Amino acid sequence: MAASKGKSVKKTSKSASAGKGLKKRVYFFGAGKAEGTTAMKALLGGKGANLADMTMAGLPVPPGFTITTETCKDYNDGGQKLPRGLMEEVRSHLAKVEKAVGKKFGDPKNPLLLACRSGAAVSMPGMMDTVLNIGLNDEVVAGLVKLTNNERFAYDSYRRLINMFGDTVKGIDHHYFEHELSEVKKNRGVELDTDLDTEALKEVVQRYKKIYRHHLGEDFPQNPLKQIEAAIEAVFLSWMGDRAIRYRQINDIRGLLGTAVNVQTMVFGNTGDDSATGVAFTRNPSTGENRFFGEFLINAQGEDVVAGIRTPLDCQSEMPKWSTKSWKELLKVKDLLEKRYRDVQDFEFTIENGKLYMLQTRTGKRNTVAAVRIAAEMVKEKLIDEKTAVLRIDPASLDQLLHPAFDPKAQRNVIATGLPASPGAAVGKCAFTADEAHERTQAGEKVLLIRKETSPEDVQGMHSAAGILTSTGGMTSHAAVVARGWGKTCVAGAGALQIDEKGRRLIVGGKTYGPNDWLSIDGSTGEIIEGQLGTVDPEMTGPFATIMKWADKYRTLKVRTNADTPHDATVARNFGAEGIGLCRTEHMFFDHERIHHMREMILANKKDVEARKKALAQLLPYQREDFIGIFKAMNGLPVTVRLLDPPLHEFLPQQESEQKALAQSLKITVEEIQARISQLHEANPMLGHRGDRLAITYPEILEMQVRAIIEAACLCKKQGVKVLPEIMIPLAGTKAELDFCRKITVETADLVMKEMKTKVNYLYGTMIEVPRAAVTADEMAQTAEFFSFGTNDLTQMTFGYSRDDVNTFLPDYLEKEILERDPFQSIDQGGVGKLVRLAVDLGRGTRADLKCGICGEHGGDPKSVHFCHQVGLNYVSCSPFRVPIARLAAAHAAIQSSASAPKAKAAKGKASGAKGKAKTAKKAKKR
Amino acid sequence: MAASKGKSVKKTSKSASAGKGLKKRVYFFGAGKAEGTTAMKALLGGKGANLADMTMAGLPVPPGFTITTETCKDYNDGGQKLPRGLMEEVRSHLAKVEKAVGKKFGDPKNPLLLACRSGAAVSMPGMMDTVLNIGLNDEVVAGLVKLTNNERFAYDSYRRLINMFGDTVKGIDHHYFEHELSEVKKNRGVELDTDLDTEALKEVVQRYKKIYRHHLGEDFPQNPLKQIEAAIEAVFLSWMGDRAIRYRQINDIRGLLGTAVNVQTMVFGNTGDDSATGVAFTRNPSTGENRFFGEFLINAQGEDVVAGIRTPLDCQSEMPKWSTKSWKELLKVKDLLEKRYRDVQDFEFTIENGKLYMLQTRTGKRNTVAAVRIAAEMVKEKLIDEKTAVLRIDPASLDQLLHPAFDPKAQRNVIATGLPASPGAAVGKCAFTADEAHERTQAGEKVLLIRKETSPEDVQGMHSAAGILTSTGGMTSHAAVVARGWGKTCVAGAGALQIDEKGRRLIVGGKTYGPNDWLSIDGSTGEIIEGQLGTVDPEMTGPFATIMKWADKYRTLKVRTNADTPHDATVARNFGAEGIGLCRTEHMFFDHERIHHMREMILANKKDVEARKKALAQLLPYQREDFIGIFKAMNGLPVTVRLLDPPLHEFLPQQESEQKALAQSLKITVEEIQARISQLHEANPMLGHRGDRLAITYPEILEMQVRAIIEAACLCKKQGVKVLPEIMIPLAGTKAELDFCRKITVETADLVMKEMKTKVNYLYGTMIEVPRAAVTADEMAQTAEFFSFGTNDLTQMTFGYSRDDVNTFLPDYLEKEILERDPFQSIDQGGVGKLVRLAVDLGRGTRADLKCGICGEHGGDPKSVHFCHQVGLNYVSCSPFRVPIARLAAAHAAIQSSASAPKAKAAKGKASGAKGKAKTAKKAKKR
Repeated sequence: MAASKGKSVKKTSKSASAGKGLKKRVYFFGAGKAEGTTAMKALLGGKGANLADMTMAGLPVPPGFTITTETCKDYNDGGQKLPRGLMEEVRSHLAKVEKAVGKKFGDPKNPLLLACRSGAAVSMPGMMDTVLNIGLNDEVVAGLVKLTNNERFAYDSYRRLINMFGDTVKGIDHHYFEHELSEVKKNRGVELDTDLDTEALKEVVQRYKKIYRHHLGEDFPQNPLKQIEAAIEAVFLSWMGDRAIRYRQINDIRGLLGTAVNVQTMVFGNTGDDSATGVAFTRNPSTGENRFFGEFLINAQGEDVVAGIRTPLDCQSEMPKWSTKSWKELLKVKDLLEKRYRDVQDFEFTIENGKLYMLQTRTGKRNTVAAVRIAAEMVKEKLIDEKTAVLRIDPASLDQLLHPAFDPKAQRNVIATGLPASPGAAVGKCAFTADEAHERTQAGEKVLLIRKETSPEDVQGMHSAAGILTSTGGMTSHAAVVARGWGKTCVAGAGALQIDEKGRRLIVGGKTYGPNDWLSIDGSTGEIIEGQLGTVDPEMTGPFATIMKWADKYRTLKVRTNADTPHDATVARNFGAEGIGLCRTEHMFFDHERIHHMREMILANKKDVEARKKALAQLLPYQREDFIGIFKAMNGLPVTVRLLDPPLHEFLPQQESEQKALAQSLKITVEEIQARISQLHEANPMLGHRGDRLAITYPEILEMQVRAIIEAACLCKKQGVKVLPEIMIPLAGTKAELDFCRKITVETADLVMKEMKTKVNYLYGTMIEVPRAAVTADEMAQTAEFFSFGTNDLTQMTFGYSRDDVNTFLPDYLEKEILERDPFQSIDQGGVGKLVRLAVDLGRGTRADLKCGICGEHGGDPKSVHFCHQVGLNYVSCSPFRVPIARLAAAHAAIQSSASAPKAKAAKGKASGAKGKAKTAKKAKKR
Repeated sequence: MAASKGKSVKKTSKSASAGKGLKKRVYFFGAGKAEGTTAMKALLGGKGANLADMTMAGLPVPPGFTITTETCKDYNDGGQKLPRGLMEEVRSHLAKVEKAVGKKFGDPKNPLLLACRSGAAVSMPGMMDTVLNIGLNDEVVAGLVKLTNNERFAYDSYRRLINMFGDTVKGIDHHYFEHELSEVKKNRGVELDTDLDTEALKEVVQRYKKIYRHHLGEDFPQNPLKQIEAAIEAVFLSWMGDRAIRYRQINDIRGLLGTAVNVQTMVFGNTGDDSATGVAFTRNPSTGENRFFGEFLINAQGEDVVAGIRTPLDCQSEMPKWSTKSWKELLKVKDLLEKRYRDVQDFEFTIENGKLYMLQTRTGKRNTVAAVRIAAEMVKEKLIDEKTAVLRIDPASLDQLLHPAFDPKAQRNVIATGLPASPGAAVGKCAFTADEAHERTQAGEKVLLIRKETSPEDVQGMHSAAGILTSTGGMTSHAAVVARGWGKTCVAGAGALQIDEKGRRLIVGGKTYGPNDWLSIDGSTGEIIEGQLGTVDPEMTGPFATIMKWADKYRTLKVRTNADTPHDATVARNFGAEGIGLCRTEHMFFDHERIHHMREMILANKKDVEARKKALAQLLPYQREDFIGIFKAMNGLPVTVRLLDPPLHEFLPQQESEQKALAQSLKITVEEIQARISQLHEANPMLGHRGDRLAITYPEILEMQVRAIIEAACLCKKQGVKVLPEIMIPLAGTKAELDFCRKITVETADLVMKEMKTKVNYLYGTMIEVPRAAVTADEMAQTAEFFSFGTNDLTQMTFGYSRDDVNTFLPDYLEKEILERDPFQSIDQGGVGKLVRLAVDLGRGTRADLKCGICGEHGGDPKSVHFCHQVGLNYVSCSPFRVPIARLAAAHAAIQSSASAPKAKAAKGKASGAKGKAKTAKKAKKR
């Protein structure tokens, strides 16, 4: 269809092109008024929306404007050129800012200086670029000296601008500037930047300009408008930088248009000793305690705090001594922020000559311990309701609470103590660069990343390492913020450590630790301990228990566990498992004594049923005992037992010495064993003789297993244990297989119950793990009383990906965005999920009360749990330590889907009363 | 729901139980009247229905009755007990027979003797049991002597009864009787059975009775009613005998209730030299020639002809000499049968003292050569129409016409000549027992089964062997009939051969041939040739071409071929292929010179794109030449090129010597090669790094292949060749893969066309071979312009069966009837087929004109072709030699579905006018 009519073209061009006047790109805030609102996060970024909102709320926000995220998208989509008309719009908003503050951009007499900061809809700390002090040039700096009567400050600001502009906007490596600064300091015999006097700073400015000219072949731009234009462009470009892309990948951030740009009047924490700058949380983001949590630096600019170059002061203890007025103002701000946003806020402030300015606020990142405590306490404080509290906890993050902590009884040889930056217990060998940490982890080692300080370039290594340890930087340093976000253990600012990155060693207390030495770090106490410290299992108490109680209140999906032993069953039950969804029987055969009989059975001639039966009879008592233990542990709860699944060759010895021993004990030759092994060898064992195919060729195996289950159930019942066994057939792809196995199952069970003079009820069901089973689920359900989706194998066969081989191409698939994510970690809803949905619908069409569950890795993945809720499964089953995660994820799914239902209604009827609910749903969806 | 009301119970009991009077089990025929009709084949069996029909048609059928197949089912379902009331019904029908023939069963003065024969709805020659001469006992035999004045005949009949009854009904091994007969012959110094005089036969009777008593501990039953009851039961039992079951498996016969039992008045071909018995076909079942084709034996009973013990006489040449009257009568019968049944009839007759009796008629089995000629000629004779002619040819049977024949120019060293029992050319080593033939074939050898005569016990070995050679037996002997049915080459009755089965050798003309000697047999000439004779390709001419022309007229499904070389493409085109559906490019790389560059490419470091490109550049000219050849061969027809599919390790040398040579020529170490091989090793290569996964990790391979295709297409176009290339992506499971590959394809194609200054149109499409592709076909079709179902892999993944490993359990699955048939041979319509149907529907939902086809083994399987027609595919693609099979199968599908549509309508409206059509459809369905 050609667009032949002018009219229709015009209509569509609104979203397609960036024509002048058609799209508002710039939003003003300042002097108590703002064009943006807090609801415009997608368009203005989190920082921009909050600056607008804070301005409206009467907080002291330096005036400025926000350029939309959409503009960033247009910039990057359109060959990285600023959209036409943008700079005109910027200039007109600049005029408003000038009016609001009574200063003029580029006017040496009364200069307005600007900050230019990135800000996406989702916070990506340190990932994108910031340029401060824009508007300074040789002329303006002179004016600034006159105006502030502070020559040192003016030149300090100027040299910072040249450095940041040169590095961030023009790509001159930071270390060239660093080198010049060091030279000047060395020449003048001073140690700290703050010790440099005005003359020194003037020299630094000259040197920086030289550097700039040397690298770019042109002078540092003296036109302030050129500066701001270049800065805006640099922010947009940084969105597509490697660092930012990698950060989004690691944090699974998708669907954003780009970053907004916030251009804001500069305020200065570095004008003298009555100025300061700081960052703070309204509550402690590490423990959750409801207590002001912040740090500040006197006579400094914001990036000094974040970068961790100087160790900042604690607000709570130090600020009242410095300025009671400022401290009181800050406490008021804290209260106002929490009431307004009903969540912990992470904010930046600057005190310029005693006057407080708010530079930004955002929802505070916190670790899971803190998140759980804050959510539970905010309900008590009536700031939020139970459902909101449940939704506040990212299910995956519970992992942090479910990992072991150091054994409190273990002897601790503490070699140093730092800040408890991110709680947890981490043990590893020492790695001294991010690359090293990443590579050694990939190679299977457990390492701690040990650095003076970390920077955004280090994220991959930080993510890989078991824990992070730094010698400088505070609780809000890069290392601390990032580690807390991931729930990774971090000890920061352990100043006693002497870290020799090049020499790959750490020296402390006269002792040296190298790449092969083990250390343990305690993120809750800040302790650094020599050696590998033992750990203990976590418990579910306090606010954690409260949140989980609420989660159970709202979820509808049951949560079972995958457990093969009474111990695992008990652990899972303590974590709230409501049954066993997958009890694998094969692991039971690997025990030393049993494997012998198993091998005897396998080595019997294919036609020698009697020999096989004899060996199986030896295995029967073991199996029965296993089941008795599990049934007792799960008293009153259902237990799904999957019959023998793996191919038989997995049970035979691979090493010749073992083969010899086996041959001797079975009185056959090694050659016979090897012949059988080679006979059992398969080209594609994944698609070979396994699962119920074993039961069909060797029905006596099935018979023995059913006998063991039913005998155990009868014995338990006699002892008063409530048993609910569910017998599950693996790998079936046709109804006929289920019929064949069912006949033997029923006959055996009837016989055993007659022998034992007891009746037990049991269910007979099947795994749905080959695509054919899903497609013919209507037929399968004629025989099966329940389905359990084995999504591991179903994923392998639906995609045709061998899990053992997928690493040959999956990394390419993820990198080239052919797959959004690893389908073995999170269920592929568009393909595998479609089969699951089809099977559930077909199965329930045949048998309305068909119980459907999922076992396999996906059962513990929150996104997959959500999907299972939507599809209408009865339960998910996952490993014991993921049971709480699944419970919480199930609650999220239930709350979100009940919230989205009325939302849809409201949207239709335009009922404004439903707004609150819709908001919750929206928020929830983002998580 | 409990059956609480008497009324409803009564209603359902009709089909559930065998209550007296509720179910008619016995159908009379005789004296021009019959209770059954020809339409009742399912209930009365083919023989029973035809006996009824022949009776009604006024043919001289000895009176009798038929017991239904349903009774057989009830017998076998009900614990193998004759249903209550059956024998009463038998007795009352017996009375009718007695009335019709004026004789009395068991009456020594005027005895009626009965034959008891099996007869299922589908003919299973020799597979089930027959007992003749029932009604004889010590008293009746004496009466028979008086009545016939033929003592020899009477005792000959009696000894046959005891033998058959003892063997067939009571299970006494035949050879005990055989032994006694030999003894008597030896004692009396005679060679043939016919040379035994009355006294000798009386002695045989005594000896047989002794054998009977010795084995069973009881006397041969003198009560005729007990005899008939036992015989009926034996027929029912034989239905579930191993032989019958195996026969049904081999011939894929399903859905039958059981066998009927035909009890019929005995007529005797052995009452003297004016009696005879014979079997005949209305046309030659081996060549199709419209000429009476039969054999008879004077003074013999029917089984003597079939068993091949005496070599029978040819009717055409010998009968006029023996009895002109009988010969004329037979010719009349032939005409009457063909007009009535409009197909070749295979009938049995007996001449008793000069009077002709018809014992049975049935549709004559014929080989494909004959079937094709008969069908074509019957259209000319206006006996049938074109559609019926097309439906008469079993598509699978065309295989016989498409296999090579012996090269007419080859030197033939003929060592003997037998009867041309089943045409074709077979070459193999000598096997002397059925078991040996089967086992050696399984082990990969090509063998001929060489026997004096074959028996039903031999079917497995006969089926396995490349061809069958016998030294006794005629054109209607067991070996000949069975071999023709399968289209297997057979030379029968080669009397010059001296076959020593125990000594495993064949002696002829003073020469001895053992198990390792090669022979060639020509089933069209009967020649037995020493050594391995060369063969030539078949041609499509004469009636074969006529039938195929009609097939093309009625089919709607297109037929393409799978061809990788210009030669294969040409062969397929000559067989009527309408394009290439699958041109695999990987085979092209195995050529000596090319494999070197291929290996060079594979051995390049993963990151060394340039090295790979260099190697690929060497391969480009070869690929281009391949495509030019294929495009030229298929001028004007579409060619689907599948891009590289197999895992790379398949191209690397496995043997160390080869690895060394490769290392030397590439100037790297053997260790490097071995390291790369072990790096490429996969646990499940079937689900590994292959298909388009290669194109995604190594886009330069895709680029080279597209370049080769488009360059070839442009060059061909310049030469006036009409090229229609279709570029096909293998193994894709997501739309994103297709998008990725499409971008490179389009860019490369555009570039090449610019370089070559030519434009060619091409399609871009995908294989649908992983289940995910089928499930997301709506998305796939957004990018793909055509789908080609790779049902080999789709079957592997849908079932989770590795084709390389399936033999570990598939035989059990077939034996235990968990699967009806091997899903790799015939598409699994209930599972894999469901996915195909889903994908076609989803795909066409997105792109209405989506071209859909199938490639892979199923494309040449008639059942699967039928399915493809139903699903609405545009074409099937199969190997060149199966193209005619697919064309014919497609015609069957089209004719049958157009016939079944009005049938459904007619059934609703009860329109009797549609009957003819419905009949055709029904018949068609059975094939």
